[in-house]
Amino acid sequence: MGKVTVNQGFVVRKANDAEVITVPMPSSPGPNEVLLRTLSVGICGSDIHYWHLGQCATFIVKEPIILGHETSAIVEAIGSNVKHLKPGDRVVTEPAVPCESCEYCRGGKYNLCLDIKCHATPPYHGTLTNYFLHHANYTFKVPDHVSNEEAAMIEPLSVAVHSCKRSNVTVGSKVLITGAGPIGIYTLMAAKAYGATKVVLTDINEDRLKLAREVGADETILVTKEQSEEQLVEHIRTLFDGDLPNISIECSGAPTCSRLVLLATKSGGTAIQVGMGPPNVNLPIADAAIREVTILGAFRYKDCFPIAIDLAASGKLQLKKLASHRFDFKDSLKAFETAKSGIGMKVVINVSE
Amino acid sequence: MGKVTVNQGFVVRKANDAEVITVPMPSSPGPNEVLLRTLSVGICGSDIHYWHLGQCATFIVKEPIILGHETSAIVEAIGSNVKHLKPGDRVVTEPAVPCESCEYCRGGKYNLCLDIKCHATPPYHGTLTNYFLHHANYTFKVPDHVSNEEAAMIEPLSVAVHSCKRSNVTVGSKVLITGAGPIGIYTLMAAKAYGATKVVLTDINEDRLKLAREVGADETILVTKEQSEEQLVEHIRTLFDGDLPNISIECSGAPTCSRLVLLATKSGGTAIQVGMGPPNVNLPIADAAIREVTILGAFRYKDCFPIAIDLAASGKLQLKKLASHRFDFKDSLKAFETAKSGIGMKVVINVSE
Amino acid sequence: MGKVTVNQGFVVRKANDAEVITVPMPSSPGPNEVLLRTLSVGICGSDIHYWHLGQCATFIVKEPIILGHETSAIVEAIGSNVKHLKPGDRVVTEPAVPCESCEYCRGGKYNLCLDIKCHATPPYHGTLTNYFLHHANYTFKVPDHVSNEEAAMIEPLSVAVHSCKRSNVTVGSKVLITGAGPIGIYTLMAAKAYGATKVVLTDINEDRLKLAREVGADETILVTKEQSEEQLVEHIRTLFDGDLPNISIECSGAPTCSRLVLLATKSGGTAIQVGMGPPNVNLPIADAAIREVTILGAFRYKDCFPIAIDLAASGKLQLKKLASHRFDFKDSLKAFETAKSGIGMKVVINVSE
Amino acid sequence: MGKVTVNQGFVVRKANDAEVITVPMPSSPGPNEVLLRTLSVGICGSDIHYWHLGQCATFIVKEPIILGHETSAIVEAIGSNVKHLKPGDRVVTEPAVPCESCEYCRGGKYNLCLDIKCHATPPYHGTLTNYFLHHANYTFKVPDHVSNEEAAMIEPLSVAVHSCKRSNVTVGSKVLITGAGPIGIYTLMAAKAYGATKVVLTDINEDRLKLAREVGADETILVTKEQSEEQLVEHIRTLFDGDLPNISIECSGAPTCSRLVLLATKSGGTAIQVGMGPPNVNLPIADAAIREVTILGAFRYKDCFPIAIDLAASGKLQLKKLASHRFDFKDSLKAFETAKSGIGMKVVINVSE
Repeated sequence: MGKVTVNQGFVVRKANDAEVITVPMPSSPGPNEVLLRTLSVGICGSDIHYWHLGQCATFIVKEPIILGHETSAIVEAIGSNVKHLKPGDRVVTEPAVPCESCEYCRGGKYNLCLDIKCHATPPYHGTLTNYFLHHANYTFKVPDHVSNEEAAMIEPLSVAVHSCKRSNVTVGSKVLITGAGPIGIYTLMAAKAYGATKVVLTDINEDRLKLAREVGADETILVTKEQSEEQLVEHIRTLFDGDLPNISIECSGAPTCSRLVLLATKSGGTAIQVGMGPPNVNLPIADAAIREVTILGAFRYKDCFPIAIDLAASGKLQLKKLASHRFDFKDSLKAFETAKSGIGMKVVINVSE
Repeated sequence: MGKVTVNQGFVVRKANDAEVITVPMPSSPGPNEVLLRTLSVGICGSDIHYWHLGQCATFIVKEPIILGHETSAIVEAIGSNVKHLKPGDRVVTEPAVPCESCEYCRGGKYNLCLDIKCHATPPYHGTLTNYFLHHANYTFKVPDHVSNEEAAMIEPLSVAVHSCKRSNVTVGSKVLITGAGPIGIYTLMAAKAYGATKVVLTDINEDRLKLAREVGADETILVTKEQSEEQLVEHIRTLFDGDLPNISIECSGAPTCSRLVLLATKSGGTAIQVGMGPPNVNLPIADAAIREVTILGAFRYKDCFPIAIDLAASGKLQLKKLASHRFDFKDSLKAFETAKSGIGMKVVINVSE
Repeated sequence: MGKVTVNQGFVVRKANDAEVITVPMPSSPGPNEVLLRTLSVGICGSDIHYWHLGQCATFIVKEPIILGHETSAIVEAIGSNVKHLKPGDRVVTEPAVPCESCEYCRGGKYNLCLDIKCHATPPYHGTLTNYFLHHANYTFKVPDHVSNEEAAMIEPLSVAVHSCKRSNVTVGSKVLITGAGPIGIYTLMAAKAYGATKVVLTDINEDRLKLAREVGADETILVTKEQSEEQLVEHIRTLFDGDLPNISIECSGAPTCSRLVLLATKSGGTAIQVGMGPPNVNLPIADAAIREVTILGAFRYKDCFPIAIDLAASGKLQLKKLASHRFDFKDSLKAFETAKSGIGMKVVINVSE
Repeated sequence: MGKVTVNQGFVVRKANDAEVITVPMPSSPGPNEVLLRTLSVGICGSDIHYWHLGQCATFIVKEPIILGHETSAIVEAIGSNVKHLKPGDRVVTEPAVPCESCEYCRGGKYNLCLDIKCHATPPYHGTLTNYFLHHANYTFKVPDHVSNEEAAMIEPLSVAVHSCKRSNVTVGSKVLITGAGPIGIYTLMAAKAYGATKVVLTDINEDRLKLAREVGADETILVTKEQSEEQLVEHIRTLFDGDLPNISIECSGAPTCSRLVLLATKSGGTAIQVGMGPPNVNLPIADAAIREVTILGAFRYKDCFPIAIDLAASGKLQLKKLASHRFDFKDSLKAFETAKSGIGMKVVINVSE
């Protein structure tokens, strides 16, 4: 670390006002902390919301914060209690650090912790910066053969792993995924790794569906405005050989898709809402209730990073195909503009090497 | 049976056109059937719909059918394969007979059977008749000390048992029940029997809440139009000592309640839709999804009759308090008019003794 | 606390060498601790082992330790972070304090924590002393109407709650409990509270079975040496109306009972080992495996104290009937001799009022 | 079928007395039956027991029966109710046909049916015959690209699928398999398909372990008599990077392995007994109970054939590598002698083409 004497960060001050500026150098790590140097950072939809709108869901940018939470990094220094890491280790950071003492944390559902602190969620800084401190318990070593960019995808891949775990995707599962954006594609990859027998994706963008097919989708459906809900359900039934999928994973945030996953899931099956849509949606709840379709939500992840790292390391996934655009740290604003434009898939910022 | 030479039934022909008329005497029971003489029949909301509207949900009265499916009866004759029953046994009938060979039947979820035949669901006749045939597998003996009227409540009590089983009500559960009509009250009784630590009911009718408190509700909330959703959630939180219930059971069919059970259930908890409301409801799905509230539906019941019989026989429940009105078979139309008026709780028709 | 200037404890030094002696007064509570004055303490089999044999299982008394871990107490002082308790509160103490940071603690199974510290388990002191410090997170307030002696039974009742939770005792369960000592009796009470439809206990001591029937056992079996294993299974089958219990809970530690619960549990059911027997037992594993009987163990408890407190407070249990002998603190040795003799049920030492 | 006028079968009459003889031609299929012509049959350990000992477990050959139950076949004729098959379809037969009406069948656990009828289990004939009748519900079409020999492996692969399902093998699972015979190898393949992160096999035969490594084992352990149980556990711990496997699957039937899977499974994990050993085994039950290791058994399979067919069809498994020896139908006795000798892995008899 001797070489570096200054720390920079991509800071958003308010809606449409963000740039790379000098930020304070972090202090030495506390007993359970590690000091990390950022390698690569992927841009997430929430990052774009904070930059473009100054807020995301109910979280509002009141003070300037550093963005970024899909991160690979390298350990520069470790705290006195840290045993599983050493300087020079390449790592990924689970961005949300729970309190470890509330009933959710002690009950094995730390993602629901009421006092969780998450990267790039106001008022907490993110990782689009040269150096940052993190809790060692939420910092995981990655194997050498996983690239910096692939490692930065462990975080969104963990979202996919969490929804597959919650909905019990396994060998024999017939899975519908609505939305072929990054989360939909990662979920496809995870569902296949969990053994799903058939995975069908829907989207309104044929380019995205083409990529889905390249990385393992068994079938895809290009959704158009002409199709009625009933027609879409029947189309899905046809692709699943006259049956309906037993698991549907909503990854688009579109209200029409939140409806579709209820209607298109087999009686007794599971529909899980992963995409973040509007607060209220008009849902066909009577049909789902009568057919005992279980409706789940998924919030972030818990205990998923080690699994996502193993999946990335297995080489079975084609994570690299998702990185459509790359930028240097100094060009972070261009990276955000590209991500916002909707072209391509995952935009990655390489902060250092 | 020698004494009786004629069979009568309360038959609905079309909306608002029903009366007790002579119907065909059933044939001798097939090998797996029993011939039953009806004792008592409770009136359910679906019966009222068929009588008053000529339909219920998507089921339409096209041919005249006999109504009634909450039934106690006495065995008159048994088929050649029937081992567990004998003439003279007092029984209750599980009204929906599944096919026993589809994937749902073989998978332990026979209530989702696609080829199920249910009493008083067109085109199948119900039990408001002197004599009827039933599948012996779905006919259960009741102990002597359970009265005919109590036995006729085993069916709706089974609905309550099914929702408690599905939502895992147990010792330590904090339960919210929306709606204090018959299903809400039976669910209260079942939840207490399953060990629930605290049960709170909501309704817009103070008389119903009074009965709820008499049969075991720990607290009740009289819902008024003045209260906002947020205020109601905070009221509920107060009654659960600053926490929210971990299980909420919707028993009213009101869209406002389908919303409330999502908002008022603790993060990581379970909300179950039992009441039948309109096909589409505007639901706060994002909040439920982020907080990982599991949303379930409940359709009829499976393997619940033996449990409901044991509960009724245990004497722990105060089933008798629910029978607010009684009528003779010949006065069935009056019974339906009373039930439709909304006064009282459960209306029972005593067909024979 | 001003009145008391000395602290005493019932200390075991080595096998058969224990007495009430003066011990150090605890320091002021740390931020997350409470200083407690002991009220009542029940004697457990493990206490007797430490006193009589100088060891229990693999734990050996190497340094003198204070015994006792079934405890009610009163708060004398609280640490700076403690919010849920105040001086004067009557409480019970969960004796085993986990590390709160290992994978088991974070995964919701803190009873399996590898770094747990438990009262009266070498080298940690117990609660048969006037004053002791405890972690506030594992100290729970009890309602006024639960007596000191009843409160001291919350700990063994939590063992019973844990085994009922793990084996999913609920309405409709048919339960066999082998062993009608204190744990068997508490388990009977818990199983009934969880809604079990029928509970049958076995023991070799008719006095214990008599008590079992008084506090709720539906049937009991006095086991004699003359009965073969097969005869015993058939006896059990008869008591369950020709079926076998779907849940069996072994509470005796006797190898014959560890065998019996495998043989006497219905196919597809659950047998759980709660009693601590010898390290190795000759088990009919092929029969259990072919019939897919799930075999569980239960170690202490997790998240059970609040539930056990609610159960004790409900008044549904007859906890008082279990306290067969009472002693003053100064007569602790006599209390241990009584407990060891096997007469009666639960021996309680009242340390203060 | 016109060409064939005679039916032959490999019939065992008593211990060590078996040969291919003429047997009755089956009648026309009943409404729910299919008439099948056998293609390939794999030899199972139970077949060898019946031939060599005249019994297997508690089943005894009292009347001559045809052996064989690992079967691929071709449909010759179908019953009047059969919709999903037609003459000429290549199929596999699930050998055990349950009653479809007992509580186990209706509860989704038909493998525990008390009135199940299984191929080559006295008094029911097996499939080492030219023609046989089977229940259509338990006859499944296989894709063209699955060979006759591979199809005959669907049955033992279903055993492996069942144990993976029961023990919840999934992405992230660390799995120990004891025994690298056919069931151990199929279980390895299934565990990998279910996403297991690491699978380690043990055996006393290095040739079997070599095959295990070729078809996907991450590590293997050659067990020798010199190793103590403790040493073996530590060896396993080392191969799992200092941790223990969370799932252990016993596939050898050896009592030492039934012990090992209890000792070597991580606290809170699952050990499942698949291999059939002696009726009683001296087991370290106290250690397993204290560490809350769940002990399961697996009996045959339920709902596993469709999954095993999908796995076989996926091409991910290397099923062909398991067929070590092939024989013509007329040489069935030689096939059995080879299988009994223990050389090689799976012996297949090709009955017709």
